Amino acid sequence: MSPEQPTPPPSLPPARDKLLFTPGPLTTSATVKQAMLRDLGSRDETFLAVVREVRERLLGIYGLSQAGGWEAVPLQGSGTFAVEAALSSIVPRSGAKWLALVNGAYGERIVKMAAVHGLACEVVRTGEDTPIDPAAVRAALAKDPAITHVSLVHVETTSGVLNPLREVGAVVKERGRTFFVDAMSSFGALPIDFAPVDFLASSANKCLEGIPGLAFVLARRSALEATAGLARTLALDLHAQWRGLEENGQFRFTPPTHAMLALHRALSELELEGGVAGRGRRYRENNERLRSGMEALGFRAYVPRAHSSPIIGSFLYPADPRWDFRAFYDRLSARGFLIYPGKLTRAECFRLGNIGRLFPVDVEALLGAIGAVLGELGVELRSR
Amino acid sequence: MSPEQPTPPPSLPPARDKLLFTPGPLTTSATVKQAMLRDLGSRDETFLAVVREVRERLLGIYGLSQAGGWEAVPLQGSGTFAVEAALSSIVPRSGAKWLALVNGAYGERIVKMAAVHGLACEVVRTGEDTPIDPAAVRAALAKDPAITHVSLVHVETTSGVLNPLREVGAVVKERGRTFFVDAMSSFGALPIDFAPVDFLASSANKCLEGIPGLAFVLARRSALEATAGLARTLALDLHAQWRGLEENGQFRFTPPTHAMLALHRALSELELEGGVAGRGRRYRENNERLRSGMEALGFRAYVPRAHSSPIIGSFLYPADPRWDFRAFYDRLSARGFLIYPGKLTRAECFRLGNIGRLFPVDVEALLGAIGAVLGELGVELRSR
Repeated sequence: MSPEQPTPPPSLPPARDKLLFTPGPLTTSATVKQAMLRDLGSRDETFLAVVREVRERLLGIYGLSQAGGWEAVPLQGSGTFAVEAALSSIVPRSGAKWLALVNGAYGERIVKMAAVHGLACEVVRTGEDTPIDPAAVRAALAKDPAITHVSLVHVETTSGVLNPLREVGAVVKERGRTFFVDAMSSFGALPIDFAPVDFLASSANKCLEGIPGLAFVLARRSALEATAGLARTLALDLHAQWRGLEENGQFRFTPPTHAMLALHRALSELELEGGVAGRGRRYRENNERLRSGMEALGFRAYVPRAHSSPIIGSFLYPADPRWDFRAFYDRLSARGFLIYPGKLTRAECFRLGNIGRLFPVDVEALLGAIGAVLGELGVELRSR
Repeated sequence: MSPEQPTPPPSLPPARDKLLFTPGPLTTSATVKQAMLRDLGSRDETFLAVVREVRERLLGIYGLSQAGGWEAVPLQGSGTFAVEAALSSIVPRSGAKWLALVNGAYGERIVKMAAVHGLACEVVRTGEDTPIDPAAVRAALAKDPAITHVSLVHVETTSGVLNPLREVGAVVKERGRTFFVDAMSSFGALPIDFAPVDFLASSANKCLEGIPGLAFVLARRSALEATAGLARTLALDLHAQWRGLEENGQFRFTPPTHAMLALHRALSELELEGGVAGRGRRYRENNERLRSGMEALGFRAYVPRAHSSPIIGSFLYPADPRWDFRAFYDRLSARGFLIYPGKLTRAECFRLGNIGRLFPVDVEALLGAIGAVLGELGVELRSR
């Protein structure tokens, strides 16, 4: 690094954490983190009431309820743990076939899981900048009547592309298949039509703005009930986790009590912000400013505006030979902004997430820092 | 409850959390919880340095190191997730047979895991108040040469019975089998002879006094290297988790960053206390006062003193018909002490854990409260 870099000595802790313009873990509110300054007994009523409320509110965000036939099943671990819990718990060991709809790394991860569990799996792939086409899903289902389950990643965090959940779901239900949705990066901030959904996995640590270490599956009870005994693991057994919670309100195995307290608080703050509509509004505003600001600086977004979610953006590397992602990252980091490398297979890019407790003023500050760093690096974009 | 109960209105939050005399989650220090008041990027150097240090220090607690051929593999989830990660990741799909040594619920859980994964499993069981007998292990191994892996629960949290790790381990190694230890309730506070150990699982949230949601496996590298491709899941793939950490210092899937920060701080506090020796001393003093205090009150411990660990005690229900565990629990809870129900199959008992950030003065306060509650309930023990 050059001597004029505004980096404090590494041994001296900063006053504030860097802002996380990443897909997660995210910047959360001080009050969400402060909710963790407690030690509760995992089988005591104080904690059980927290779990009950969290399960109810997770459903309530989208107007679902137990009375309406839905269940919320929290699970220890990251979002991937919840996705694997679903995949490995809802499919019979024989006579089942999974159709994975894939346009990015998280779709591919589901394919990998199916392979690990020895589950027959067909794949419909589209480009990483292109939403899944419902017609392709219809064709795949028509061609292969053996398919029993279909998975869709609602927002593919790889690129930020938004997939047409409602339209794909309609095709899946029209053909009477079970529909699983990975809603990791959409739950809590984007509208979700639950009509075609049977199982949906997400995490405390994305748009809900809780802390990582806690995930969940929402399930249509009739579908969940039919999965008793199908699980391929003990820890990730979705049906057993649900039965345990129903029987005595407790997790089967030690719950992340602090992460649960943080989620409980985070759900109150989601409500304060006006639920999905309010949170979605802030994220859209963040995303709009980020996208237009980056374009004004000369960057090009990988996903066309029409297909992009208001969650995260992928920006192509500039063609200028002076471009150096590592230096760009480090200099933004020294200014208090953490960004994210790309995960695309077919294009060199980096990613800027805009979810978590970030506001448009934070986006403006990031854009200012990006402009300054480009100047320092001597990278020219406007001429492209 | 009677009107003279000192219970505050449930809507009014208390000044302090109740003390957790449970097997976990536990009471932790204020400073461990305060370490979580940060949001770090999971792929940024600040967090990666924390992960590196935690991995080193987990080994260092017992004088192990990477240079000495050992690896520490942290994993999202509860301790059970780490146990299942080991069991489902280190055994070939054919030609393997597990021998589970069982004297309580955690030993039985391993048997259940083996069944879920379709793993051939023999069991040697002893009574819940009786340590595993190394001679029985020798006989089982002699009888069945097909056995490839042996598991032992070091401290069976069901009862608190301490199993002879060194002696059992010697038998297992003498016969050249792979030795897996569930050290959930001993790691960090009891001496562990790693000479016979190949894999050992524990959690951030027991004797290390971190928060729940993060577990780990310590593995002899030569044994771990031999397990590539054996995992039966994606999320709980021990070898892949290790390779990921070695390749770029990162978790494969979103890590519980806050729980990791808490563990980092907790490991510093373990060092401050004088490591395993210092922490073990405090727990033994807690346990000794608890046991002698309970016996002075007239309770009878389920596990004989010689076989008991200084971690948790199981106490038999009094014979007095006025005994009512629920009332006993509630009245202690109202006084700020949470205790734990029993988990034994063959005896009616309750449990008092004495680990976590608890001191002998806290044990004395609990004993005082127990005496007062017995008086309120009119339960007579001395005459037994």
